[in-house]
Amino acid sequence: MSERFAFTVKARDGTARTGAITTPRGIVPTPAFMPVGTGATVKAMFPEDVKASGADVILANTYHLMLRPGAERIARLGGLHKFMHWDGPILTDSGGYQVMSLAKLRRIDEEGVTFQSHVDGATVALSPERAIEVQCLLGSDIQMVLDECTAHPATREEAKASLELSLPWAKRCKVAFASMSKPGQALFGIVQGSVYPDLREACARDLMEIGFDGYAVGGLAVGEGQGAMLDMVETTTAILPEDRPRYLMGVGTPQDLLASIARGIDMFDCVLPTRSGRHCQAFTWQGRLNLRNARYAEDQTPLDPESSCPAAQYEKAYLHHLVRSGEALGAMLLSYANVQFYQELMARAREAIAAGRFASFADDVKRRYAGSGEEVEE
Amino acid sequence: MSERFAFTVKARDGTARTGAITTPRGIVPTPAFMPVGTGATVKAMFPEDVKASGADVILANTYHLMLRPGAERIARLGGLHKFMHWDGPILTDSGGYQVMSLAKLRRIDEEGVTFQSHVDGATVALSPERAIEVQCLLGSDIQMVLDECTAHPATREEAKASLELSLPWAKRCKVAFASMSKPGQALFGIVQGSVYPDLREACARDLMEIGFDGYAVGGLAVGEGQGAMLDMVETTTAILPEDRPRYLMGVGTPQDLLASIARGIDMFDCVLPTRSGRHCQAFTWQGRLNLRNARYAEDQTPLDPESSCPAAQYEKAYLHHLVRSGEALGAMLLSYANVQFYQELMARAREAIAAGRFASFADDVKRRYAGSGEEVEE
Repeated sequence: MSERFAFTVKARDGTARTGAITTPRGIVPTPAFMPVGTGATVKAMFPEDVKASGADVILANTYHLMLRPGAERIARLGGLHKFMHWDGPILTDSGGYQVMSLAKLRRIDEEGVTFQSHVDGATVALSPERAIEVQCLLGSDIQMVLDECTAHPATREEAKASLELSLPWAKRCKVAFASMSKPGQALFGIVQGSVYPDLREACARDLMEIGFDGYAVGGLAVGEGQGAMLDMVETTTAILPEDRPRYLMGVGTPQDLLASIARGIDMFDCVLPTRSGRHCQAFTWQGRLNLRNARYAEDQTPLDPESSCPAAQYEKAYLHHLVRSGEALGAMLLSYANVQFYQELMARAREAIAAGRFASFADDVKRRYAGSGEEVEE
Repeated sequence: MSERFAFTVKARDGTARTGAITTPRGIVPTPAFMPVGTGATVKAMFPEDVKASGADVILANTYHLMLRPGAERIARLGGLHKFMHWDGPILTDSGGYQVMSLAKLRRIDEEGVTFQSHVDGATVALSPERAIEVQCLLGSDIQMVLDECTAHPATREEAKASLELSLPWAKRCKVAFASMSKPGQALFGIVQGSVYPDLREACARDLMEIGFDGYAVGGLAVGEGQGAMLDMVETTTAILPEDRPRYLMGVGTPQDLLASIARGIDMFDCVLPTRSGRHCQAFTWQGRLNLRNARYAEDQTPLDPESSCPAAQYEKAYLHHLVRSGEALGAMLLSYANVQFYQELMARAREAIAAGRFASFADDVKRRYAGSGEEVEE
């Protein structure tokens, strides 16, 4: 296994591309979807089933782990990989997004952010240097710069001010990373700029000047709508270097993923497959299903005969019973089936790009999902 | 596989015995512990892990299943085994115990009981005939007669009145079972009588006169204390026929099981391993542990190095983190480890009986558990 972080594009189909990220902990074929293991566990899944689902890389949340059990503690216990029984690559975010969305924010200035922990109310400081230190303590393979995730909606002035805060942080992260990281670890920059194409472009160019191992598109899927999101993706990927992976943060539905792959995105993470799995929803090759629906009460067909996931072979009638009864096994089976569906979706996308038929593949999936607007019932 | 239900004692050590129950769906070495799959799922466990834990037979609750999803529905879906992905033997209780403990009881008379469902408030009737019909619809391999589980404490007169209700029900269950059951299915009687040895004896003799495939000891572990419970077990097993399995219902801790095996019990069920697993408690060969305890925060030793359960190989520090964070994986791993511990306990008990060293084995376990009084923290 190479001791260096590398990315190679192997085939293109229009703007879509398939390739591989190489890390000391394993190779990640792209486009890749990262299941989210917020608190050092992909919720309601055994680590070996996450692996069996086809996932090559997972995401863990710096914010959650620095608060509980603590980054220094995880380091003392041998690092995050050992702690959570995952020996493949792990990407960690910087904590910035959750500070804004979960914590009681106390202060934000050019130095960094100070906030109150949502776990125990303690006052915690996060600076660019500390964000990198925490990610290095965890032993993360792909680390993210600390940025301010611009709120939505934001005026052009607000978005610009946000960038002016984040860009110096990105530089400081790179400096800190150079002194703290180990060989083979990577650091990604994050393009912000809200829904303003010129700000996105300027941010991308500024980050490229600093120079990162990969580039993320952040601050999207926060309420701007799919059209605006895809416009921003397209604007940004048009500028980003061809030889670096591009990661669209926190997105999304199968349709979002395919539309973004068509616009040159290589990596994704989203809580949707696991969160939906805990809320009775299944992603299948026949579309999206809500297993609470009474129509499944005596449906003896498997959840997804087209999937090779063991969990997708369970009968809909049984899954219906489990979710109606609030049984843990319902969430366990649906989480597993959903995570594997996302992996199968990525595997088929990679094949389709390599074969030059990505557009027709994406159309086919879009058709399968068009008639299935079943919503979460909570 | 034999099409008949049979029981053979293979070795004795004092009053303890080891043998095997043969059913058309598989052989169950005894003493046996049945994990509880109340609502057609052993809570928070995949069916294949229940099997892998060493369980040869599981229990399902008639009361819960008749209310949701309904016995007729399960029959239409191909029976309980297919429904819940369990192809080994299943024992079902009669529903009587839960009617008393969970439902809003409406009426109880010699005909049967009428109650309000705790699921949807519907009025439901349960008679001896209906209890057998429901168990046959489920396809249960070992069925239980409907009885009134005598409340504790009960005066001698109350306990006697309760027996006078239950004995005619037992007879009617046998008649109904003869007309509705399939070859190889078995029906067990249930000895009640509260804490009164003469009532237990009389009940046992009356049931033996009716004649059942096995005999359960019911109405214990309801607050009478371990001493009184073991006295009743001893009184009852002294009378029960040698050539029929004896099942102590709803018991208990590892110490309870071993003390009851010493008094001639062959079968057990209890929610303790799974319920404890959902409440941060582990049963291990080193005793009972409460994983919430801060002492485990940086404990890198496996949960139970002496167990062969995959879940027991996880570090205590990680389990501590999971249960403190309320992560589903904590309950999943502890449930699996606990169910397997109970199976390993039974396997070692069988070996010890066969080798004529059961008393020293039981003493050893008792010693291991003596210092571990960690209680559930809720």
